Amino acid sequence: MLGGVPSSTKSANKEPFLADVAVVGAGPIGLAVAWRCAARGLRVTVHDSAPGSGASAVAAGMLSPVAEAYFGERQLTELLVASAARWPAFAAELTEAAGAEIGYRTEGTLLVGLTGDDLAEASRLLAYQQGLGLPVTPLRPTELRDREPALAPRVRGGAFSPTDHQVDPRRLVPALHTAARRAGAVFVPQAVRRLSEVDAGITVVAAGCGAAALTGLPVRPVKGQILRLRAPGGVAPGFRHVIRGYADGESVYLVPRADGEVVLGATVEERADTTVTAGAVLRLLRAGVDLLPELAEYDLVETIAGLRPGTPDNAPILGPLPGRPDVLVATGHHRHGIVLAPVTADLIADLVISGVPDPLLAPFRPDRFTGVPDGGGPDRTTEGDRWS
Amino acid sequence: MLGGVPSSTKSANKEPFLADVAVVGAGPIGLAVAWRCAARGLRVTVHDSAPGSGASAVAAGMLSPVAEAYFGERQLTELLVASAARWPAFAAELTEAAGAEIGYRTEGTLLVGLTGDDLAEASRLLAYQQGLGLPVTPLRPTELRDREPALAPRVRGGAFSPTDHQVDPRRLVPALHTAARRAGAVFVPQAVRRLSEVDAGITVVAAGCGAAALTGLPVRPVKGQILRLRAPGGVAPGFRHVIRGYADGESVYLVPRADGEVVLGATVEERADTTVTAGAVLRLLRAGVDLLPELAEYDLVETIAGLRPGTPDNAPILGPLPGRPDVLVATGHHRHGIVLAPVTADLIADLVISGVPDPLLAPFRPDRFTGVPDGGGPDRTTEGDRWS
Repeated sequence: MLGGVPSSTKSANKEPFLADVAVVGAGPIGLAVAWRCAARGLRVTVHDSAPGSGASAVAAGMLSPVAEAYFGERQLTELLVASAARWPAFAAELTEAAGAEIGYRTEGTLLVGLTGDDLAEASRLLAYQQGLGLPVTPLRPTELRDREPALAPRVRGGAFSPTDHQVDPRRLVPALHTAARRAGAVFVPQAVRRLSEVDAGITVVAAGCGAAALTGLPVRPVKGQILRLRAPGGVAPGFRHVIRGYADGESVYLVPRADGEVVLGATVEERADTTVTAGAVLRLLRAGVDLLPELAEYDLVETIAGLRPGTPDNAPILGPLPGRPDVLVATGHHRHGIVLAPVTADLIADLVISGVPDPLLAPFRPDRFTGVPDGGGPDRTTEGDRWS
Repeated sequence: MLGGVPSSTKSANKEPFLADVAVVGAGPIGLAVAWRCAARGLRVTVHDSAPGSGASAVAAGMLSPVAEAYFGERQLTELLVASAARWPAFAAELTEAAGAEIGYRTEGTLLVGLTGDDLAEASRLLAYQQGLGLPVTPLRPTELRDREPALAPRVRGGAFSPTDHQVDPRRLVPALHTAARRAGAVFVPQAVRRLSEVDAGITVVAAGCGAAALTGLPVRPVKGQILRLRAPGGVAPGFRHVIRGYADGESVYLVPRADGEVVLGATVEERADTTVTAGAVLRLLRAGVDLLPELAEYDLVETIAGLRPGTPDNAPILGPLPGRPDVLVATGHHRHGIVLAPVTADLIADLVISGVPDPLLAPFRPDRFTGVPDGGGPDRTTEGDRWS
């Protein structure tokens, strides 16, 4: 069943208590990899002293390949689209496997520009997204407000992206934990400080920002501050779509949950602390209330900051660690860890089992940073898309 | 030693375990009354299931008779001035008695108007305050910034009030608790639901909003939302004065503490819940950052709401409960509980001991609301200033 990468894992199968796959990190990526591997019959251990305590505990859970498609990130967008396409089946399987709802919702995303300048910025991005053939439909202000009457009367325009969905990361991660455990994964509640501490045929490093110390790869923390609001009276928020808004130059998103929660985020800061600052909260609230005035009446129930695992080219790092074919890396998902969980889990599990990398993984291999001081990046290399 | 109000307390002195004075409520008012009474030799019990958990846990601690002097509240202003004048000695005695610092600071308060409209509003109030003979000096923008270089360059003007000081309520209340205990007060960690549950010669009701249910007096909760920020790096804030600011129509205050904390408040809302709302946090942060731009870099460490004990005329209720000469009321301090603690404690203790009310108390007697549907108020009655 195990393929050629690395061949040593074949013998590993015969040792009692020796895992086929050791997953370092129990965030959504590590847990999804563990679930997929265990469900396919591999013996899996998952190593983390505090499962789900990293970036996912802060994340909003937008599944937005379209609204997040950005200039110069074509190959990342392709991966996002591929993963988003897997989400409906992934969500259904996970809900079944874990016996728990994960807040997967398919109303889609509205892109909204508040001022003329905001609309100009959003429209430029919209044209780029349409040029890639992504499904996104421009909407006039009246059409926006027909879809979401709670939007500010002064919004100047926007668009609808029907395939940009959402999930609740705080339900997703416990569900993945349950599903992995039910599939047979064994959890080791200890932090891994060196890869030599782990004994398995293949080690998957899904340690988020912690991957830098474990692998030497250029993963750095990118701080994000985010707020959680709650509609008063225990009712659902007064809007159903995810809102991706531009408001007086501020770019924010608003994610409504059925239980009344609204996630309002997020800053992107080159900092490694997790303090919540007055200025960030002010900017998020101002943009949020300008776009959806009723938010002013909502309870502010949480202010929190997390650290995303960023890379020099903003794309994830997926594949064998250079010089260590028994170590697969699955990190650097930056702002896209939730949406990329299904494709990452499936392709890493495939790679573990078959030894053959899916072509989708080619632009994201770890060795793309070797010898390139500031990284080449998936959209900057013309060579090297063949797996070594 | 006990005077004539009520005479029954004389016999109470002879019963073992029977207190001369039972204080209901262990906020700053109740604790200060208990301390002053116990220090003068009375046997005191203090009844509260959660000392210091009311409005004082949220309060900023401004001691601002001048900056808070408001139209139509002349007699309240007189009481505020009288209490503020007692603060230096009160703070010194308390620090000595409790063996703890309480964050009493005397740099004074700057009144600041951000825009022309804000300055016009502040100037109107300033003229009123000067008309009362209060010590307050107008300052030009350059003079303001000479005193506090961190103020926004665009502030349009303001004033300096040298006698408006500050204290830290979260240090004050534990210090009062210690001082009262050291003076002999006995704490009963139970809530009082009916006055009949308390057995003492005189009962002092200092229960904040809870006084309404105990006495039938028109005390209502007035919600206040407030923020606590912290200067990054563990240093003191970049300003020393209390700032009383008007910013685009929003009235806020900023209270700097030596340990880096800045209190930014506060809303005044006719609500009885203690939820923190997005709109209130937005308004406070916007006004705060507009007045002192460096606040944007500060950590936002706490968002909290409390309930002030308000009265129909915004003035406290101090004196015997109508028909119950053995029950003295000391509540309804609204936004002024901290500054009014010394005068309240001294005059209530005097009244307990001598039976003779100080003339300062006359406008604030509980019976002023009797038969007047919405209250008469200390500045609306021309009769009845003589104690009955």
